[in-house]
Amino acid sequence: MAGWQHGRRVKKSTAVQEALEIIREMITSPEVEEDLRLPSEEELALRLGISRLTVREALTVLEREGVIARIQGRGTIVNRFARRLTSRIDSAREIGKFIAENGYAVGVDSVKYWWQAATAREAEKLAISEGEEILVVEKRFLADGNPAAFCIDRVPKKLFCDLDFSTADLSQAIFPFIETRCQCHLTHDVIEIIPTVADVKLSRCLHVKEGAPLLRLDAVEYDLEGRPVMYNTEYYLDHFVRFTLCRIVSYMT
Amino acid sequence: MAGWQHGRRVKKSTAVQEALEIIREMITSPEVEEDLRLPSEEELALRLGISRLTVREALTVLEREGVIARIQGRGTIVNRFARRLTSRIDSAREIGKFIAENGYAVGVDSVKYWWQAATAREAEKLAISEGEEILVVEKRFLADGNPAAFCIDRVPKKLFCDLDFSTADLSQAIFPFIETRCQCHLTHDVIEIIPTVADVKLSRCLHVKEGAPLLRLDAVEYDLEGRPVMYNTEYYLDHFVRFTLCRIVSYMT
Repeated sequence: MAGWQHGRRVKKSTAVQEALEIIREMITSPEVEEDLRLPSEEELALRLGISRLTVREALTVLEREGVIARIQGRGTIVNRFARRLTSRIDSAREIGKFIAENGYAVGVDSVKYWWQAATAREAEKLAISEGEEILVVEKRFLADGNPAAFCIDRVPKKLFCDLDFSTADLSQAIFPFIETRCQCHLTHDVIEIIPTVADVKLSRCLHVKEGAPLLRLDAVEYDLEGRPVMYNTEYYLDHFVRFTLCRIVSYMT
Repeated sequence: MAGWQHGRRVKKSTAVQEALEIIREMITSPEVEEDLRLPSEEELALRLGISRLTVREALTVLEREGVIARIQGRGTIVNRFARRLTSRIDSAREIGKFIAENGYAVGVDSVKYWWQAATAREAEKLAISEGEEILVVEKRFLADGNPAAFCIDRVPKKLFCDLDFSTADLSQAIFPFIETRCQCHLTHDVIEIIPTVADVKLSRCLHVKEGAPLLRLDAVEYDLEGRPVMYNTEYYLDHFVRFTLCRIVSYMT
């Protein structure tokens, strides 16, 4: 499966974004492994050839993510666990990427799509009228050849600029596909985390017993203008995809 | 129930932290409600009487949280959904607070505690030896008088400086209790998000059928030195506590 391995990159890279990438690499380097400490802001700015302001913004982001801690008089400490965390629910969103991060080979072995009238729930999530036409895409994801996740993506038909696609196009990552076909730029999403159990359909699809626990994520993807573009329902087998999250206290109120 | 209403504040408030609080209030003000736009960095700095650098750091945090989007040539836009989001899994961690954010009156009607030898799993999570003594606290949380969540907190006995406490002390929020009794400062946590179903004990405790879906969060709380201080297992009834999360794309790689 192509697509996941390379990850998604923002089109317009900013200085902060580039600094973030370099510092993230630094964190997993053997140099930092030893004492779990990052160079000072000044030294980072000098080494990376960027302003101290940019370094500071990047460190603020990493601190917020719980990857580092900045301690008065002790410098910038890398949180030990940050080096071995996978599947952070806050830092990736392609199902294939989650599966790969958990150490499995990713596959997609079943892709179906059709057009249908939006249900009340779908209409509400997508801010359209009930009955408006939407594209529905269903996919099954494999981890080392075993069913690991099932997802349903929904996009209003009226957002499409280009309707000339096939099942093969849909078996790739959905985000770049939607951005191209709907000529939009997805900037943020809102996820609901919902515990559920397998019904008849899901138990067949994911090879688990009826009633087996599944994690359901309902995500609405928004573009720059705050317009909902896609509504996804994803079911994960905990055995293959376990989500984690880091939080730091200083931003909790 | 006291304790939750006031929330937790960091002991040492920084300029960025204060700016964050003020901007968060601004976001929910009627002024911003109208056009969902924040004043410019310069204007915010002037109004709040702080440096533009501090304003910029605060905005970076809010951007990372998905609350705002900074768009070239269009200024700082408040994401519509940010005004009505509750129970963000990344921004609170007291169960009582989650329940309150979902609009219910919080109660704790059952608190039990005992000392026991750590199991293999508990020892691994707390970085202690199997069999070392730990405090175990079990609590049931109510939402408008109905069982809504059940949690088990575990702390190594050796971390306690003060063992003179009672069930009444433990019925309050656990974080300040642990920080006081263990003389530590909890700075970050790592959470695993695990779908599960109610067993016999949980079904009785939470008044649901056996096999009903529950969300389980396993959290390890760390102090400044990266030492694990507490390992919590929390079970939530989705009906009362639904977790959400916002993500922005520009920080996803």
